Amino acid sequence: MAQTSKNIAIIGSGLVGSLLAIYLRKKGHSVTVFDRRPDIRTIKFSGRSINLAMSNRGWTALRKVGLEDPIKQIAIPLDKRAMHVNDKPVYYQKYGKEGEAIWSISRGILNKRMIDLAEEAGTVFKFNEKVWDVDLPGAKIYTGESEKGEWQEYQFDVIFGCDGAFSRVRHKMQRRSRFNYSQNFIDVGYKELTIPANADGTHKLDKNSFHIWPRGEFMLIAMPNIDGSFTCTLFLPFEGKVSFESIKTEQEAKDFFKEYFPNVRMEIEDLTKDFFNHPTSAMVTMKCYPWTYWNKVALVGDSAHAIVPFYGQGMNAGFEDIFVLDQLMDKYGDDWDAIFDTYQKVRKPNADAIAELSYRNFVEMSSKTADPKFLLQKKIEKHFASTHPEKWVPVYSRVTFSDKPYADALAIGDQQEAIMQKVMQTPNIEDKWDSKEVEEMILGLLGDQ
Amino acid sequence: MAQTSKNIAIIGSGLVGSLLAIYLRKKGHSVTVFDRRPDIRTIKFSGRSINLAMSNRGWTALRKVGLEDPIKQIAIPLDKRAMHVNDKPVYYQKYGKEGEAIWSISRGILNKRMIDLAEEAGTVFKFNEKVWDVDLPGAKIYTGESEKGEWQEYQFDVIFGCDGAFSRVRHKMQRRSRFNYSQNFIDVGYKELTIPANADGTHKLDKNSFHIWPRGEFMLIAMPNIDGSFTCTLFLPFEGKVSFESIKTEQEAKDFFKEYFPNVRMEIEDLTKDFFNHPTSAMVTMKCYPWTYWNKVALVGDSAHAIVPFYGQGMNAGFEDIFVLDQLMDKYGDDWDAIFDTYQKVRKPNADAIAELSYRNFVEMSSKTADPKFLLQKKIEKHFASTHPEKWVPVYSRVTFSDKPYADALAIGDQQEAIMQKVMQTPNIEDKWDSKEVEEMILGLLGDQ
Repeated sequence: MAQTSKNIAIIGSGLVGSLLAIYLRKKGHSVTVFDRRPDIRTIKFSGRSINLAMSNRGWTALRKVGLEDPIKQIAIPLDKRAMHVNDKPVYYQKYGKEGEAIWSISRGILNKRMIDLAEEAGTVFKFNEKVWDVDLPGAKIYTGESEKGEWQEYQFDVIFGCDGAFSRVRHKMQRRSRFNYSQNFIDVGYKELTIPANADGTHKLDKNSFHIWPRGEFMLIAMPNIDGSFTCTLFLPFEGKVSFESIKTEQEAKDFFKEYFPNVRMEIEDLTKDFFNHPTSAMVTMKCYPWTYWNKVALVGDSAHAIVPFYGQGMNAGFEDIFVLDQLMDKYGDDWDAIFDTYQKVRKPNADAIAELSYRNFVEMSSKTADPKFLLQKKIEKHFASTHPEKWVPVYSRVTFSDKPYADALAIGDQQEAIMQKVMQTPNIEDKWDSKEVEEMILGLLGDQ
Repeated sequence: MAQTSKNIAIIGSGLVGSLLAIYLRKKGHSVTVFDRRPDIRTIKFSGRSINLAMSNRGWTALRKVGLEDPIKQIAIPLDKRAMHVNDKPVYYQKYGKEGEAIWSISRGILNKRMIDLAEEAGTVFKFNEKVWDVDLPGAKIYTGESEKGEWQEYQFDVIFGCDGAFSRVRHKMQRRSRFNYSQNFIDVGYKELTIPANADGTHKLDKNSFHIWPRGEFMLIAMPNIDGSFTCTLFLPFEGKVSFESIKTEQEAKDFFKEYFPNVRMEIEDLTKDFFNHPTSAMVTMKCYPWTYWNKVALVGDSAHAIVPFYGQGMNAGFEDIFVLDQLMDKYGDDWDAIFDTYQKVRKPNADAIAELSYRNFVEMSSKTADPKFLLQKKIEKHFASTHPEKWVPVYSRVTFSDKPYADALAIGDQQEAIMQKVMQTPNIEDKWDSKEVEEMILGLLGDQ
């Protein structure tokens, strides 16, 4: 169904805001994007970002507006994890089937490119313009130099809040009665570090791997950039015996890397300088409901559902929001009440599911990767999945390489876990993990469901 | 340990704010209380309050500063529930043992009295003074006519946020990183109604009962006031077949009361007028952490832990916060870091526990009171508790008539529930609920723990 052209404001020029602008321009709407920060294309990027892992849902949303190919040019496919354990050779774990990969992209490069594309599509960007208040029923926004200074009023037909985990737009909704909201920080923080390219521009580590140095309570990861460098992220508890709090001097930072990351520390550029210059960032799971106000205002992406990054799905989930919104606009035309109400009802359970899966991955990475029983369970699952691929799709694949709802992935994952809990109680399971008996047991348990 | 006199601000002149002022004056501090609203003693009360049920924890906190007797003069003891089921005589359930009661107090009358008492103790009250911002590390507050107008700055040594579920002080803390926060509204709202006194000033219903008209998805309650009236509260879903949303006209309101509350509707004053004049209020569970900022700022009462009212513990929990703070001031003297850090660590698990218990009571009242199996279970518990009072203290008594931590009540309640789940699986339990066999079974299960 066609839509009448509306005058639409998007708050936030991040990845979700700029992709939404492109979608809305395709539908013929006037689009103005406000951002309180300067144009990211004119400044040095912050040194506090984790590289993005674009997977199936992200590509699906980009493909719809013809952006899959241009964005793939700034992305690198990773088809496997590279696990770095001290005193052992690196070992590799394939992510999925042949041809399945996640794609590493620098957030800064992608965001700049997306803003370029949105601008080419006719979006008006207003950078350095701070939104201080939103009149939700009136679809008005108020901007100005400071919260207490003079404000300018803008009237729109529809407003989208794409202003991230600490959204001003949501903040306004949050003060209303019957608005459910939660923000929960985890006790682990992260810090960005860099492995530069070789002199000839090639990568110092395998370019098509997601590199992980798991160390129990903490870990280092590295993802490749197209300039030959890697963006590394150190995840470490804020407080405790080995923690950001406990590393206060350059010597302590050096000792920490020497002890835990001896094989990579020499590759990291400006290790101790960056360690103290780059901020230590926190990670939050944010949930809220409702996501919309009448037919006037909707939250999209992190402003509606911020998640911890351990499933690599934050951007993908936000892009999928847009893909779903677009389908609902096709379906409901000018009935923005129906568009917004269906949008929040469809997306909320999926957002909750990927929040839960992401949090569980954090727990799994922190505390289970060293547990032999857990590793055996994963080995059995993998073996069974390769024998019966039609009967057992791993949750990771369902999340990363399919368009099936996140909520289904969570539910099916819980069923699989219940089955595996029973399987793991089999006496001497470690000796017969790949036996016909175990295979038959799983088949039987699957049949019971 | 004695404390050096400090210059202390309290934000909020509600029950918790005014009692805290009295405590702090006893310790010799200068106390200024700010409230954005007018002096409650000068205005008509709002018509949106549920009567309070003061129980053991509340009295303990009042007793410490000599207020038990003066406040008992404006309270009425309720030693039982009076259950009103249509077409059946009223039946009574004792709350506890002989002499145990909860006390009904009008929020308005209590709050006025508490402000009087705080003022007599030397507290300075600044009404109609709106706090717009708080400098947490600087312990400064900023007030003014409007958020955008001129502000006045005040410097204090310590600030207490006693400004309720929608606290401005907490709001300021909430924008900081690593502040955990949640607000969850239930789908049921409430509305205040009144049963006036008889012409001779006596009560129209039994004065020493907490009156309940349970109707499954909704209910009416009534609590006595000292002037002979009852404050009634109608709890009803916001949306749905029978809901606030579905009652739009005076006729619909009349029909609703005629169908569900035929025996009390004639007693209620201005029924249809009040129904539409009084606001429909929402109920929220609010949790957050941390509750304090350095040695400068602390949240007390609803600003730290708002709960739904179905256990009658909101005010009691807030008063207990103050009682605990006072003990910690005695213990740690001028070490406000220790006072605040211990306060939040001690109180947080108890606040979470009473939030959970209150929410469960809501679920229980909404959906289980009509379930014969549930009622049988309660009957068995009561029978066992009366036979073995030293082995089985009901959770309600532990919460309401003891000073034991809420967290213990929750944990012991969960153990009791686990035992009862097993007991309820006994074949023909309905025929032998008071048998020796069941008694022995419970004793055995208690012994296993």
